[in-house]
Amino acid sequence: MFDVRPVAYVLGLLVTTLGGCMLVPFLVDIAEGRGQWPVFLESALITTLCGGLVSLACANAGRQGLTLQQTFLLTVGAWVVLPLFGGIPFMLGATEARIVDAFFEAMSGITTTGSTVFTGLDGLPKGILLWRGILQWLGGIGIIVVAMVFLPELRVGGMQIFRSEAFETMGKILPRATEIASSISTIYVGMTLACAAAYMVCGMDAFDATVHALTTLSTGGFANYDSSFGGFQGPAEYVAAFFMIAAALPFVRYVQMLNGHHTALWRDSQVRAFFGTILALVAVMSVTLLALFPHHPEQAIRESLFNISSIISGTGYASVDYMGWGSFLVTLFFLIGLIGGCAGSTACSVKIFRYQLLFASIRVQLKRIRAPHGVFTPRFDGRPVADEVLNSVMAYFVFFVVSLGVLSLALGFTGLDFVTSLSGAATALANVGPGLGEIIGPAGNFATLNDTAKWMLSFAMLVGRLEIMAVFVLFTLRFWRG
Amino acid sequence: MFDVRPVAYVLGLLVTTLGGCMLVPFLVDIAEGRGQWPVFLESALITTLCGGLVSLACANAGRQGLTLQQTFLLTVGAWVVLPLFGGIPFMLGATEARIVDAFFEAMSGITTTGSTVFTGLDGLPKGILLWRGILQWLGGIGIIVVAMVFLPELRVGGMQIFRSEAFETMGKILPRATEIASSISTIYVGMTLACAAAYMVCGMDAFDATVHALTTLSTGGFANYDSSFGGFQGPAEYVAAFFMIAAALPFVRYVQMLNGHHTALWRDSQVRAFFGTILALVAVMSVTLLALFPHHPEQAIRESLFNISSIISGTGYASVDYMGWGSFLVTLFFLIGLIGGCAGSTACSVKIFRYQLLFASIRVQLKRIRAPHGVFTPRFDGRPVADEVLNSVMAYFVFFVVSLGVLSLALGFTGLDFVTSLSGAATALANVGPGLGEIIGPAGNFATLNDTAKWMLSFAMLVGRLEIMAVFVLFTLRFWRG
Ligand SMILES: [K+]
Ligand SMILES: [K+]
Repeated sequence: MFDVRPVAYVLGLLVTTLGGCMLVPFLVDIAEGRGQWPVFLESALITTLCGGLVSLACANAGRQGLTLQQTFLLTVGAWVVLPLFGGIPFMLGATEARIVDAFFEAMSGITTTGSTVFTGLDGLPKGILLWRGILQWLGGIGIIVVAMVFLPELRVGGMQIFRSEAFETMGKILPRATEIASSISTIYVGMTLACAAAYMVCGMDAFDATVHALTTLSTGGFANYDSSFGGFQGPAEYVAAFFMIAAALPFVRYVQMLNGHHTALWRDSQVRAFFGTILALVAVMSVTLLALFPHHPEQAIRESLFNISSIISGTGYASVDYMGWGSFLVTLFFLIGLIGGCAGSTACSVKIFRYQLLFASIRVQLKRIRAPHGVFTPRFDGRPVADEVLNSVMAYFVFFVVSLGVLSLALGFTGLDFVTSLSGAATALANVGPGLGEIIGPAGNFATLNDTAKWMLSFAMLVGRLEIMAVFVLFTLRFWRG
Repeated sequence: MFDVRPVAYVLGLLVTTLGGCMLVPFLVDIAEGRGQWPVFLESALITTLCGGLVSLACANAGRQGLTLQQTFLLTVGAWVVLPLFGGIPFMLGATEARIVDAFFEAMSGITTTGSTVFTGLDGLPKGILLWRGILQWLGGIGIIVVAMVFLPELRVGGMQIFRSEAFETMGKILPRATEIASSISTIYVGMTLACAAAYMVCGMDAFDATVHALTTLSTGGFANYDSSFGGFQGPAEYVAAFFMIAAALPFVRYVQMLNGHHTALWRDSQVRAFFGTILALVAVMSVTLLALFPHHPEQAIRESLFNISSIISGTGYASVDYMGWGSFLVTLFFLIGLIGGCAGSTACSVKIFRYQLLFASIRVQLKRIRAPHGVFTPRFDGRPVADEVLNSVMAYFVFFVVSLGVLSLALGFTGLDFVTSLSGAATALANVGPGLGEIIGPAGNFATLNDTAKWMLSFAMLVGRLEIMAVFVLFTLRFWRG
């Protein structure tokens, strides 16, 4: 049995930090004057106390470096423990949530999924609404750092392709992981402020602009209203589309651009493939929508751009109920949710680089079939790809599809219909937010699902957020030996 | 441009043979005395004439061996040309089909899919019903031979893993490909006769027993009645389950058993995995059905065994409308259709050996994550698996999933609802037969779909039957060069 204390030490620090963050909604609740301030004060006390005590108890072990197993445990542990504490305000506050709902909502926040079990959002105290935004915003910056620093080292899901890159590139510009985190945080904060300002220009009040900026940059998608983004049709949709796409791009490229490599973003083949995909999808969907609203070309283009950006980045805002757009577009939205953004961003799902790797491998296969004795190597971003990476991407893909199947089955077993089961499983694993159908579709929410389904979906969000394999590795016996 | 004449020569011979086979339903129609005999006489004349003329015209080229490209073209060409001629009786006969329906039905026959666009089967002339069975039966023996002799050489979809095996094993026992085909045909004929006899013992008349035996051994699933297998509930379901499973096992093992290797079947790890999967599924489904019919344990086990065997082998007979069994079992049936039988049988879909290879690869990944510097090799049937095979399986898997997505989208575009689009795409690509939902579910049929959807599904059946890659290879520019 290995030493869990170094892991507990860091988890304790993270929980304490989360408790500290609860003071922000505490201050907002005081300012709003609806008498809600004890909620976040109490939550902050419980959280910082628990976190602080654990950290103190394990402080001796904190100086050791982390082994590979400990890194796995820390990564998964953070996304399990933080929702447990992050959900406390939902239990104590106006939402009066049971533990299953509080955990679901907090997990949906920290994994930046954005599926909600709460209704009547429009009337909730501002502290609660802000807290939902903060959870997503923290989850967003958290996953960028984990995806850049930890996952490539853990060699899961093909992320090892970014291994040398992250360390070579960063090694030249920035010597240490904490510096990576801090310069990415600066960019993240700056973009969030810019997004909030742009929302205000489009007519949102300061509070809505702040919360929606938090959930836009994290591609989280929690909104302050039951109608999601439906109340902000118009220019705000263009602003949202711009920042959702920006949040789904690899943040390391922004760092490089700030350091003088002005073409770093555009030279990334992931980014080019991502923009190409969005353009093609917007073109197809606009033309299809023009058949539905022939006299509103601007609306067709705007709604296509907004909803495609929302689903492909995994944000999950909805500005209309696209369940009424016909089976072609509904199926298209389902599939777009399985594409995802770029690695090293807040976006989740399969991600564009995996498709690029798979297609590179398939191109090579086709060449080999034609010329069995030729030597061909798949390439990504101009460099040859090791078989280990391809196998790892394949494993990710299989795990994703098998998890989707098993979860759909299990949800069906709890009594959900086929479309709700399948799309609920997909939206949770891909951390998108809305599913399909009347219950959990863009106009619905997850409130009425049974508790078993909510627990399963919470687990699925965790699994999806951590590139699937990182969680399942913990379930192998071999992991716990030695 | 390469020489297509050797391909045309063989295709001509195949078409002529198909025309010859039309004399069987011709004789049956004479015997039935409903005046339908001109249908198959005329069809046979057209077919043998066209086939014969092409063969004669290209006879000079027939002596050459086939190159790799020519083998691809022949394989795909056979599954395109034979349905064109095989559908002629449906246009001339009592079904009075338009070309789209005739082609769909014949493609569904030759690919052993078993989706039908005809209603009122119960009243059709016997010749037409028998012809549907014959098409499936020929398609079944055809795919076994192609899967054993051609596909491993074409290195598509991981089938190359059976390359050395087929030729080593067969090389010792049987020196040439024609002998492989003839000894497998003998077994196939013998099993079909045994199945027909068993059906008659269970109370079917000679005609129904014959046609259903033809569509059981080919895992095709065309039935003589609109209610599919619903009229034969009881002992016949056990007989069908036995022969459907037998038809989904690798036929090369039967050859080996006949040659004295009595344990050949059971020593094949595919076979063991296949039986294990069926047992587990029957156990889960029986228990679930017992909750639905608490007083009929035999019925629960029988219906589980029959319907699982039917879907996993890709036969697609239905004895009940399982759409009423609740979302868990409906989702389960959808997923079972994506498993499939063993390679080298008449079964289609992803097939059990690909899952075994994928899981072997994933096990190795998990070991590598834990011990990055260890050396681990995935194994199949005890032997190490080359990376080339794994990449090929991955490519198959990706092609399958992407084809499924694109086809669902395209079907949605023609106006089909989400469940019909998705399950229709899956059932066509996996050559199972029934989809989900009211329209194409186990109690429905494909008659009411629009023509565009029928053409797309016909193409999907072809693509699925030939392990997907074999068809797409033809679409690469590189294929047609040199
Ligand atoms: K989201
Ligand atoms: K079938």
